[in-house]
Amino acid sequence: MTTPSLPIIRLRPNANARAIRRGAPWVFSNELVLDRRTKALAPGSIAILEDAERTPLALVTVNPESKIIARVLGPADGPRPDVEWFAARLSRALELRERLFTSPYYRLVHAEADGLPGVIIDRFGDACVIQPNAAWADLLLDELAEALARVTGVTSILKNSGGRGRQLEGLDDVDMVLRGTAPDAPVPVEMNDAIYMADLTGGQKTGLFYDQRPNHAFAARLCRDAKVLDVFSHVGGFALAGLAGGAASALAVDASAPALDLAAQGAERMGASARFATRQGDAFDTLAALASEDARFDVVICDPPAFAPNKPALEKGLRAYERIARLSASLVEEGGYLVLCSCSHAADLEKFTGACLRGIGRAGRRAVLLHTGFAGPDHPLMPQLAESGYLKALVFRL
Amino acid sequence: MTTPSLPIIRLRPNANARAIRRGAPWVFSNELVLDRRTKALAPGSIAILEDAERTPLALVTVNPESKIIARVLGPADGPRPDVEWFAARLSRALELRERLFTSPYYRLVHAEADGLPGVIIDRFGDACVIQPNAAWADLLLDELAEALARVTGVTSILKNSGGRGRQLEGLDDVDMVLRGTAPDAPVPVEMNDAIYMADLTGGQKTGLFYDQRPNHAFAARLCRDAKVLDVFSHVGGFALAGLAGGAASALAVDASAPALDLAAQGAERMGASARFATRQGDAFDTLAALASEDARFDVVICDPPAFAPNKPALEKGLRAYERIARLSASLVEEGGYLVLCSCSHAADLEKFTGACLRGIGRAGRRAVLLHTGFAGPDHPLMPQLAESGYLKALVFRL
Repeated sequence: MTTPSLPIIRLRPNANARAIRRGAPWVFSNELVLDRRTKALAPGSIAILEDAERTPLALVTVNPESKIIARVLGPADGPRPDVEWFAARLSRALELRERLFTSPYYRLVHAEADGLPGVIIDRFGDACVIQPNAAWADLLLDELAEALARVTGVTSILKNSGGRGRQLEGLDDVDMVLRGTAPDAPVPVEMNDAIYMADLTGGQKTGLFYDQRPNHAFAARLCRDAKVLDVFSHVGGFALAGLAGGAASALAVDASAPALDLAAQGAERMGASARFATRQGDAFDTLAALASEDARFDVVICDPPAFAPNKPALEKGLRAYERIARLSASLVEEGGYLVLCSCSHAADLEKFTGACLRGIGRAGRRAVLLHTGFAGPDHPLMPQLAESGYLKALVFRL
Repeated sequence: MTTPSLPIIRLRPNANARAIRRGAPWVFSNELVLDRRTKALAPGSIAILEDAERTPLALVTVNPESKIIARVLGPADGPRPDVEWFAARLSRALELRERLFTSPYYRLVHAEADGLPGVIIDRFGDACVIQPNAAWADLLLDELAEALARVTGVTSILKNSGGRGRQLEGLDDVDMVLRGTAPDAPVPVEMNDAIYMADLTGGQKTGLFYDQRPNHAFAARLCRDAKVLDVFSHVGGFALAGLAGGAASALAVDASAPALDLAAQGAERMGASARFATRQGDAFDTLAALASEDARFDVVICDPPAFAPNKPALEKGLRAYERIARLSASLVEEGGYLVLCSCSHAADLEKFTGACLRGIGRAGRRAVLLHTGFAGPDHPLMPQLAESGYLKALVFRL
């Protein structure tokens, strides 16, 4: 049944073979028999995973240099990845996005949950940006790009090697153009009736954060005629959505001047420049400065970077979220709205909510919770990878 | 400071006065000094709550017959409830709903989180249905109705006494017309581009479930050209939303023939009768029957009544959710979608998700999670009442 020429790797007797049978996507290095042959496999090799009794479990990719030493690609007797194999997975991923969205701007592939372990692909109209954050995908990048061009019809395909996952896999950080040409200017992206400028070559991540789309949409419903403050605004995420929702004004705060410049370009394309302002600087400092100026807003949004990216950083991160909640709550008008977000893996919903409520309470305010949102549905989750549910957005009324 | 003529009730020394200071809305009978005078208070009395050191904490309403013996109405030195007091709270509640919705169909008051403990008010255009599920609201119903008519301009106000909360408060189950006349036919309600027929006098709850609105909307996005099955459909909740989203067909299953008849009337008003069918019967039996007929659907939704309404029912309830997940997953086409809902207080998100995944696994299927939804934002939550977050909707792709 199994392809004979593939190397074989084997679980230790105490490893959880049942989890793999049930769909767990990863094998950690302490679960595997690490004989010399396994250790010698080139990063990204395709292999057959067996249980301790030598029953084939899955077709996997192996990277002896990574703590995630094997990632499941499919059934043990299934085909090896080639252009056809990629095309089948991409078609299935595309079918979902075409149901969800009316225009081709979305995360097309969200790694394991779309059947391509470690691979992120964001689509911006005729261009796609691939983040191959696992060794196997780097090796098979030609096949992947070929299938991607065929399935989606995009004309430009870029490789972004800035993902943190690549370091853990021992991969380089060299960006490349795989198909067509890199756009020589930021690309306008319509989302929730706002226009965002996505810098596909110089920006953070793959140029734009699609994950907050439903949370932007929810917040925008609260913004009609409102004075809006968007802290950690990046390229204007919540601020521009608020303007599209009819905000009287929106002030975007970010430490990055280039990001705020893209936000201003977006506001201009929307014809909303007169209602849009930016303030470059540290978020904590700016929140304190606004308080000392007695500034008040109808809607305040804080969407900070991950303060608690991992367990050791959890306590410190929760204190930072509490501080953000305290500083921002004091800027919200009575009866106004406060949107607090976390993209920290380590801070789960309960812990994050607790930190927010402590901060709001310390500002002398009370809150009811209107809405709890997560990453949009173009970011599906493997139920087995709880940590992939990193993004949380809480909408309070004070 | 405090109104002199009000009776005083007092917390026991070991009760959590700090929680009340921080905004906790309820006092349980074991937290209160139960002297003869307190026990003799008429259900629904207004009183001042003091801590054990006789410091006033809050204006409350008392019901010695209820386990929730006191509910916070406002600060100890604040005004007592009268028409103005109700009007202020209703105006604040209305302000939120008018931001959220373009037409006057929503839950206007969601009890404690809208400042009216135990009171539910649903709005259907020119009519409102009040559920006064606490004794104080029954006593002050005239003032509440007067304020409601003034703030919203509605012409019909009905009292629905069918809430389970009323029994716990020792209240009767007599429905009444408080203003105007009761509509003599079901009222059409537009929601997510679908039309639902709400029976304001004879139906479950207050005639329609507004809480699932955002989850209906999400599911509808998956339904274009799809064959849809909606189990526990009630008046067509997900089925009609699916038809509005372009479903090729929708089959609604419910045990209640009158509910299915209302669903069919809604489909007819939408001009979608030809794509709509119903099947009256027990949900478990019907799921099994559909499996034996080899029926398959692109989208399957199961929105059952609370299988685990309280802690003693939890284990049994989780097994029922697992069974629903198993039976329904086997009816979903490969690559199709499964929406599983729970309105059980006792089954939290993690436990409910676990039961769903076990059921899907037992059907021999694998799933990724696209979306986790809760009740809509016209159902705000007190952070202190975790249990009020009862509704959960999980959207899987199989």
